[in-house]
Amino acid sequence: MQNGAETPRLRMTEASETGRIEAFSDAVMAIAITLLVIELKVPHVDADHPSLGRALLESWASYLAYLVSFWSIGLAWMLHHNMFKLIPRADHVLLVLNTLFLLFIALVPYPTAIVAEYLESPGEQRTAMLIFSAMWLMVAIMINLLWWSARRHHLVVPGLDARVLRGITRRYLVGLLLYLLALALCLVSFEATMVVYVIVGVYYTLPGPDRIALAFRAPADLAD
Amino acid sequence: MQNGAETPRLRMTEASETGRIEAFSDAVMAIAITLLVIELKVPHVDADHPSLGRALLESWASYLAYLVSFWSIGLAWMLHHNMFKLIPRADHVLLVLNTLFLLFIALVPYPTAIVAEYLESPGEQRTAMLIFSAMWLMVAIMINLLWWSARRHHLVVPGLDARVLRGITRRYLVGLLLYLLALALCLVSFEATMVVYVIVGVYYTLPGPDRIALAFRAPADLAD
Amino acid sequence: MQNGAETPRLRMTEASETGRIEAFSDAVMAIAITLLVIELKVPHVDADHPSLGRALLESWASYLAYLVSFWSIGLAWMLHHNMFKLIPRADHVLLVLNTLFLLFIALVPYPTAIVAEYLESPGEQRTAMLIFSAMWLMVAIMINLLWWSARRHHLVVPGLDARVLRGITRRYLVGLLLYLLALALCLVSFEATMVVYVIVGVYYTLPGPDRIALAFRAPADLAD
Amino acid sequence: MQNGAETPRLRMTEASETGRIEAFSDAVMAIAITLLVIELKVPHVDADHPSLGRALLESWASYLAYLVSFWSIGLAWMLHHNMFKLIPRADHVLLVLNTLFLLFIALVPYPTAIVAEYLESPGEQRTAMLIFSAMWLMVAIMINLLWWSARRHHLVVPGLDARVLRGITRRYLVGLLLYLLALALCLVSFEATMVVYVIVGVYYTLPGPDRIALAFRAPADLAD
Repeated sequence: MQNGAETPRLRMTEASETGRIEAFSDAVMAIAITLLVIELKVPHVDADHPSLGRALLESWASYLAYLVSFWSIGLAWMLHHNMFKLIPRADHVLLVLNTLFLLFIALVPYPTAIVAEYLESPGEQRTAMLIFSAMWLMVAIMINLLWWSARRHHLVVPGLDARVLRGITRRYLVGLLLYLLALALCLVSFEATMVVYVIVGVYYTLPGPDRIALAFRAPADLAD
Repeated sequence: MQNGAETPRLRMTEASETGRIEAFSDAVMAIAITLLVIELKVPHVDADHPSLGRALLESWASYLAYLVSFWSIGLAWMLHHNMFKLIPRADHVLLVLNTLFLLFIALVPYPTAIVAEYLESPGEQRTAMLIFSAMWLMVAIMINLLWWSARRHHLVVPGLDARVLRGITRRYLVGLLLYLLALALCLVSFEATMVVYVIVGVYYTLPGPDRIALAFRAPADLAD
Repeated sequence: MQNGAETPRLRMTEASETGRIEAFSDAVMAIAITLLVIELKVPHVDADHPSLGRALLESWASYLAYLVSFWSIGLAWMLHHNMFKLIPRADHVLLVLNTLFLLFIALVPYPTAIVAEYLESPGEQRTAMLIFSAMWLMVAIMINLLWWSARRHHLVVPGLDARVLRGITRRYLVGLLLYLLALALCLVSFEATMVVYVIVGVYYTLPGPDRIALAFRAPADLAD
Repeated sequence: MQNGAETPRLRMTEASETGRIEAFSDAVMAIAITLLVIELKVPHVDADHPSLGRALLESWASYLAYLVSFWSIGLAWMLHHNMFKLIPRADHVLLVLNTLFLLFIALVPYPTAIVAEYLESPGEQRTAMLIFSAMWLMVAIMINLLWWSARRHHLVVPGLDARVLRGITRRYLVGLLLYLLALALCLVSFEATMVVYVIVGVYYTLPGPDRIALAFRAPADLAD
């Protein structure tokens, strides 16, 4: 069989399952990241906003929310993709957890629109930021559950260095703790929360042990 | 030829057709599942909804409809994908039936929005639920027709155990009957219908004989 | 090189170009066909539409436009895909013509929404139908131009039976003539135009010589 | 390994990384180009616009903005794809730059909608055109940064003729300069800016040295 791309071959129950999961997950993440733009509304010029330039400047909350969500989905895509490179096999639990992960990713445009709408409304800012942060915390929890479940059910590619594995686990946990901190800081101030999102963005934009793990593996190991 | 992914090779009339059908179907399902979020409207805070938190809580029908539709498309994707792994060849009837299947999948966001809008309106709740349930029944009917047509036209991979085949047929039929029940229960109460959707969700989230069928096949059989 | 799916190999100037064109075209068609649902608006129940059931029935023009456009994009996808299976190489003219083809496909939701809005408004029905029909005529013209340009620039796979080639050319031309007829009939009546769309739908849903051409080719010929 | 499409094999740290980047980038570009249609609003016929035909003609700014953005994303897709064919390896900087490139591509529908809304409003036309042109300039800057970073970090496929490399660099720079000119001309007149967009469209629609570079390479060189 030479046209594997067309009629995928199967070996074991769930082996090769992850290629299919990855393709579907990548599609959902690409769509969610591109759909964010739909929530950016063209401002209307009227008595309150006498010029388009001013009206656009006053939409800064929309652009900030767009930026944070775009970058965060981009990072989630990278984390997810690197993780599944280390997971050649999937079981049913992983499939279900991954669908839950996608549920929260696909939801991102909604809390993003809520933040864009209510970030400047003093009475509702906190609620909007809490919803936004709760959603990102759920994404981080799902990433950790995926990894934890894959390790527990022996789905991770064998022969990885124990220190590298611990490094990856730690990297995912740091994200979860930072998002938990962001959620808590919603009660303090919007600015403090945003500082955490910038830290998360910088932290995951830098290369981590998940990429290093891939580097240390010889091709023969990864060809399953 | 080694880059099958780029210029797919052809062997027989319809052989390898299903790879192409699957890719297009997967794209439509990924887009439909992610577009659901567009129907979630940011609530407006006004005299009736004095706080964002309250306004969000009052949108529970939207979230419920989102959850049911998201999970159901996710399950339809799994069922469809597992089915086409057992169908290496396609004929014209299968192509047409699959396009009808996609028509109802692509439609999902519309009845979902109708339910979100009218679930709390006493006079219209029943109509909204009937439309929603009729659409899912059509999805279930198309799944059954696809399988029935593939078996009748000898498109299913040969050598599958008869009991496994019957198990798969039964699994698809159970879904159809449950969706028929959900449609009938719309006339009784919204809560009863929802219980059926939860049962469908749990039933298909558990692994079924379609996955088991794949497990029992050796690679050589499936390499067409 | 064994992982062709990741780092596509190149041979000649434009050889293998079509795999890339096909993937991008398939994505645009899958998105356009799924975006159609966004134009279906949840009806509002008010004094004019005292019940949801009645309001939905009165939206029949939306559903009709949705059905015609969904099925037509589905057929365009099939025609496009079958055509590019016979075109292993692409030149710059083909790339530009294909982008124009995609421009009209991506536009489909707009005239579809215009028809849905104005089909029942006596003064504007004709204008709406003319725009809708003009767009589908452009799609048909682009399909014919793609094929004509591919044949003229010797991009079609060699060794095809002349009668089969003529059959394919005729099949594309019939569509163009039918869409031209549909455009002309807009001036007569909406119903007459719709009959032509049903004829087009049935004609292309039946298998044609493009599929037969594929059947007669041995794998060795198509492996470029 | 024959099913490369399913469980991608890894060789070096970042080798084969670009296949994954390309697939995600292609998906985002396909979605952004197809989402443009959502910003085309069905015109409402009222006292000001007594007929649908007239109302549509008066929406010319929307169609112009749609055309420019559709064609420009199409060209960006071609440029991006040809560039990554010459970049078999990726490093972290390239990944981050590419995500920034996608951020501006995914944003395209928003400035397009702003232009469509304000092109005919004398006081705001200039602001709208400035935003639109600034966004395209950012796309051009990212294209140039991607290429510059790939060359500097030795990610470009070795053995390319120095003149061809310079030709490609020049081709990207011409686009950046033209978009800079378009931005400056916003201050002069809308028509002058549009002439530059037509020139950019024609310039990149014609084949360039990036395609020629691919033609001169033997398959063995490109198989990494």
